[in-house]
Amino acid sequence: MKKIVVDCYGGDNAPEEIVKGALDALDAEKNLSLILTGNSDVLEKLVTRHSDRVEIIDAKEVITNDDSPTDAIRKKTESSMVKAFAALKERDDVGGFVSAGSTGAILTGAFMKLGRIKGISRPAMAALLPTSNGNENIVLCDCGANVDCKPVNLLHFALMADAYARITTGKNDVKVALLSNGTEDKKGSELNREAFALLKESTLNFVGNMEARDILSGKYDVVVADGFNGNIALKSLEGAGLTIFDMLKKNVSEGGLRAKIGALLLKPALKKLKHTMDVNEKGGAVFLGTNKVVIKIHGSSKARSVTVGILQASTLAERDVVSAIRTALAVYEVKSDD
Amino acid sequence: MKKIVVDCYGGDNAPEEIVKGALDALDAEKNLSLILTGNSDVLEKLVTRHSDRVEIIDAKEVITNDDSPTDAIRKKTESSMVKAFAALKERDDVGGFVSAGSTGAILTGAFMKLGRIKGISRPAMAALLPTSNGNENIVLCDCGANVDCKPVNLLHFALMADAYARITTGKNDVKVALLSNGTEDKKGSELNREAFALLKESTLNFVGNMEARDILSGKYDVVVADGFNGNIALKSLEGAGLTIFDMLKKNVSEGGLRAKIGALLLKPALKKLKHTMDVNEKGGAVFLGTNKVVIKIHGSSKARSVTVGILQASTLAERDVVSAIRTALAVYEVKSDD
Repeated sequence: MKKIVVDCYGGDNAPEEIVKGALDALDAEKNLSLILTGNSDVLEKLVTRHSDRVEIIDAKEVITNDDSPTDAIRKKTESSMVKAFAALKERDDVGGFVSAGSTGAILTGAFMKLGRIKGISRPAMAALLPTSNGNENIVLCDCGANVDCKPVNLLHFALMADAYARITTGKNDVKVALLSNGTEDKKGSELNREAFALLKESTLNFVGNMEARDILSGKYDVVVADGFNGNIALKSLEGAGLTIFDMLKKNVSEGGLRAKIGALLLKPALKKLKHTMDVNEKGGAVFLGTNKVVIKIHGSSKARSVTVGILQASTLAERDVVSAIRTALAVYEVKSDD
Repeated sequence: MKKIVVDCYGGDNAPEEIVKGALDALDAEKNLSLILTGNSDVLEKLVTRHSDRVEIIDAKEVITNDDSPTDAIRKKTESSMVKAFAALKERDDVGGFVSAGSTGAILTGAFMKLGRIKGISRPAMAALLPTSNGNENIVLCDCGANVDCKPVNLLHFALMADAYARITTGKNDVKVALLSNGTEDKKGSELNREAFALLKESTLNFVGNMEARDILSGKYDVVVADGFNGNIALKSLEGAGLTIFDMLKKNVSEGGLRAKIGALLLKPALKKLKHTMDVNEKGGAVFLGTNKVVIKIHGSSKARSVTVGILQASTLAERDVVSAIRTALAVYEVKSDD
């Protein structure tokens, strides 16, 4: 089993929650070994168990959200993130990378340090979303890496997300749909209409255009979008969820004793709902299209999200999502704008 | 008070629910008079009260969602929609139009029959959304009329939505934000970054870029987007709401007696929440930029949404949103790509 390298100095709760989550991942997966990057004096104290399966790489610098991503990756060579990327790139025993740090820096680092899979000009971010039946996951890709896209980029996002969905869900008949403003073939922006034609003639199980209303419906396994629209969809879904829970809380507190008892009795059902809707439970956003597995977990991640992200990275490395993407891409190489 | 013309043969529940909603609107507003278009034999029977304030225009044809919008508006001259547009355009006593029919046909009809406000090349659709504090409304514009836009179109959407928000909320300090993939000034697609510059130098109270996560937060009064992004945001919010209620229902039914009693006790709080989140309660989508008030209500509208849409049209006609937009545009005419 390949090792996973964890950048312990990214996000709001670094390094304590990151290391806690890492140790929990080692509890959960007996064959897993981890590399932690960051201030070794601090990390050594935090690693209170499993030290036989933990390697620490000392890194005294930290990349923050205020750093310019390109400058940070170039100049902060002693940072926990750059050292993690170095281990990921150089070492054959390392299969994946997890960080709660700056998204921009992670994208830039993956791009500059790891290199892209042949044929892919634009790596993309894929998020896992819940469905209304609660049993399955939806892959939304690109959910934020590429703001201005060409049609061929969307074909690549679809091919990569399809490989990722197959590996994650075990399904073979992954249904791929294009996020648009209607289900009819002619709907969509100019970019969408051109991407539609490429998807239609691809080897994918492309089922056509879809509406944002149906993202969580479970009708589709892969939702393809440019990074701008994908980001708007993802954040709208997140925002609606937060708003609804906030409003419910408010209505309960204004609803008197009756509502309070009701909420108490309904607590397990509400908790289950919150859990299903919780994006953190789904792991992080996977950066698809680079030569090894890179996962960005939420900046506000607590131990639980770190654990889920690490186990997800390990699974993707084991099941070799990179090779699956390479294979899917091979047929299309001629169409790349690389 | 200007009359409102109601196309009674659009949507899934025409004509019964449309006429029912129209009569309820007459109950609610004693000074209102309506014109109903559609099969007069049927409509006469449905108008069981307020016949002194109802005028019926006979129209035997119906425009459906399967019709090509342009063909339908051009050729179905005896349709309830085209006859409603004719009354709206030709008669000074008519101030607004309401239909639950084909969005495409309504947009085309408004564009072709009414003409645009001087300086506006692209009329746009504005939706009212709830906020998490439940007391205020947000205007999202464009929410679906214009898929591919130029930067100046987004400036116009902002100016129109600002006028609409001021009229609807009574606020003078309307905060306008641009829907983007982050709050920083440099965020967004190429289109967004150019629109940002135009908005920045406009007379609007432009507060910068915003994330989709914050649409319902109440931090902003007007959310500006191109029609493709706006549609994705609107439908994502709608879809998340539906999914959450579905899941809650499922968790309750699986949660045994305890959850069922809880849900029963919580019913008023949940009902209130559903009511706040219900887009139909906010009225329809307003088509801004044409020379009279045009409102599209949801195709599945029942009487209640029809009533809200009619009262909204009446308010906008009374408070003269068209003149407010004309005034706002006057300064910018030179920048139009008309």
